[in-house]
Amino acid sequence: MLVDVISSVNEARSDDLNQRTAVVVDVLRATSTIITALEHGCSSVKAVETVCQARSMQVPGDLLGGERYCKKITGFDLGNSPMEYKDPIVAGRRIILTTTNGTRAIQKSMKASHVIAGALLNAASCAQAALQLKKDLIILCSGTQDEFALEDGLCAGLIIEELSSIYDKPLILNDFASAMLYAYRNVKPSIEEAIIQTDNGKRLIKLGYEDDVHYCSQVNRSSIVPILHYNEMIPYSEYRSKSQPS
Amino acid sequence: MLVDVISSVNEARSDDLNQRTAVVVDVLRATSTIITALEHGCSSVKAVETVCQARSMQVPGDLLGGERYCKKITGFDLGNSPMEYKDPIVAGRRIILTTTNGTRAIQKSMKASHVIAGALLNAASCAQAALQLKKDLIILCSGTQDEFALEDGLCAGLIIEELSSIYDKPLILNDFASAMLYAYRNVKPSIEEAIIQTDNGKRLIKLGYEDDVHYCSQVNRSSIVPILHYNEMIPYSEYRSKSQPS
Repeated sequence: MLVDVISSVNEARSDDLNQRTAVVVDVLRATSTIITALEHGCSSVKAVETVCQARSMQVPGDLLGGERYCKKITGFDLGNSPMEYKDPIVAGRRIILTTTNGTRAIQKSMKASHVIAGALLNAASCAQAALQLKKDLIILCSGTQDEFALEDGLCAGLIIEELSSIYDKPLILNDFASAMLYAYRNVKPSIEEAIIQTDNGKRLIKLGYEDDVHYCSQVNRSSIVPILHYNEMIPYSEYRSKSQPS
Repeated sequence: MLVDVISSVNEARSDDLNQRTAVVVDVLRATSTIITALEHGCSSVKAVETVCQARSMQVPGDLLGGERYCKKITGFDLGNSPMEYKDPIVAGRRIILTTTNGTRAIQKSMKASHVIAGALLNAASCAQAALQLKKDLIILCSGTQDEFALEDGLCAGLIIEELSSIYDKPLILNDFASAMLYAYRNVKPSIEEAIIQTDNGKRLIKLGYEDDVHYCSQVNRSSIVPILHYNEMIPYSEYRSKSQPS
């Protein structure tokens, strides 16, 4: 199985996505938030690029969520803190989400065969789902404003580590994937500390989102794997039951 | 001291270079070759982007060196194997060098305050010279065809490790620099094996350049630090004596 890691949204080319499962990673905070929302019973998450698109797509019952410059968008129901996306607020609701980097990465990945969302929270389950989808992988680090974000790279390394523990053949990694695996292995015993020290970790703590950083640093806390189905993210377990012949 | 690492030539922006010392890294093989040539007494190395430029600049006594697709250029005196750049062949001669990635990275770095060449071979001396130049650092991984090359990233991590051991204040790293430091620390005990496993390592071994890969994997074998002086690379020791008031 080929596993490529792409350092930021801007680096992803359509050719790289062809016939692959794309794993979109935005640890701080979009993919952590989507996982949390689905875990708390929201019906689906629709990721869109612009605030305008989000507003125009809202139908009664939908919640609007998202951020610009780490802060909630004026008039939206929710920001981009996973802490807000909990039962009973999100249960049964569709969420339309727009964030600076993560939702852009999901949009950019749409040419892949499958698109799933990964974070530290669900890395092991994400690796399992990726394996079941039986395609080569491309792990897309969302990054920040087209720059590499370390927390996404470390998460890519963790997902590769999880994959290698359940896949019975050698993984074929591109150079960037090897680098992220090495980096993850080095900080594995103190992953939370490493996340706190990233640029985004420090920025969020400064803005008062310290709880988010701690929450998003938890490894394998969730079994939810969001997967794109008709342009909306739903839990992989639900996707599988929809895909099974009745 | 700020230390940023840039993942490939294409990612470097002029603004990033302003008022910095640029450390250009192309472990396989341009910067390893330049270090070796200067160690063996060549008078200077002029890095140029195109084969045409190299030919037009040659004056009697100069040697033309370089590669395209890892192979020697037709009509050139030397390829890009450091093994070729030895005394007595290069002693006292100026070398005009053009390679696919490394010389492009040197050209791209010219807006920096100083440009030095780093490789595993000279990492400790490179860190010392960088410190003496008293500027913030930008380490530019040359990469391969605008893609990240792992051997350059690991070398960037090693240079940061060497810097942190001699600098008495904390280094302020960008996220990519932290990732490369972590990755280097993980493979430190088996750096040669890691270099052999990189895409370029495997490619060069397949083309018959196994000795080059082993040679370039040696850590801190050389005290030569090439530095750009009037558009030509000369040893840092010579540069310092030229720069001292007489």
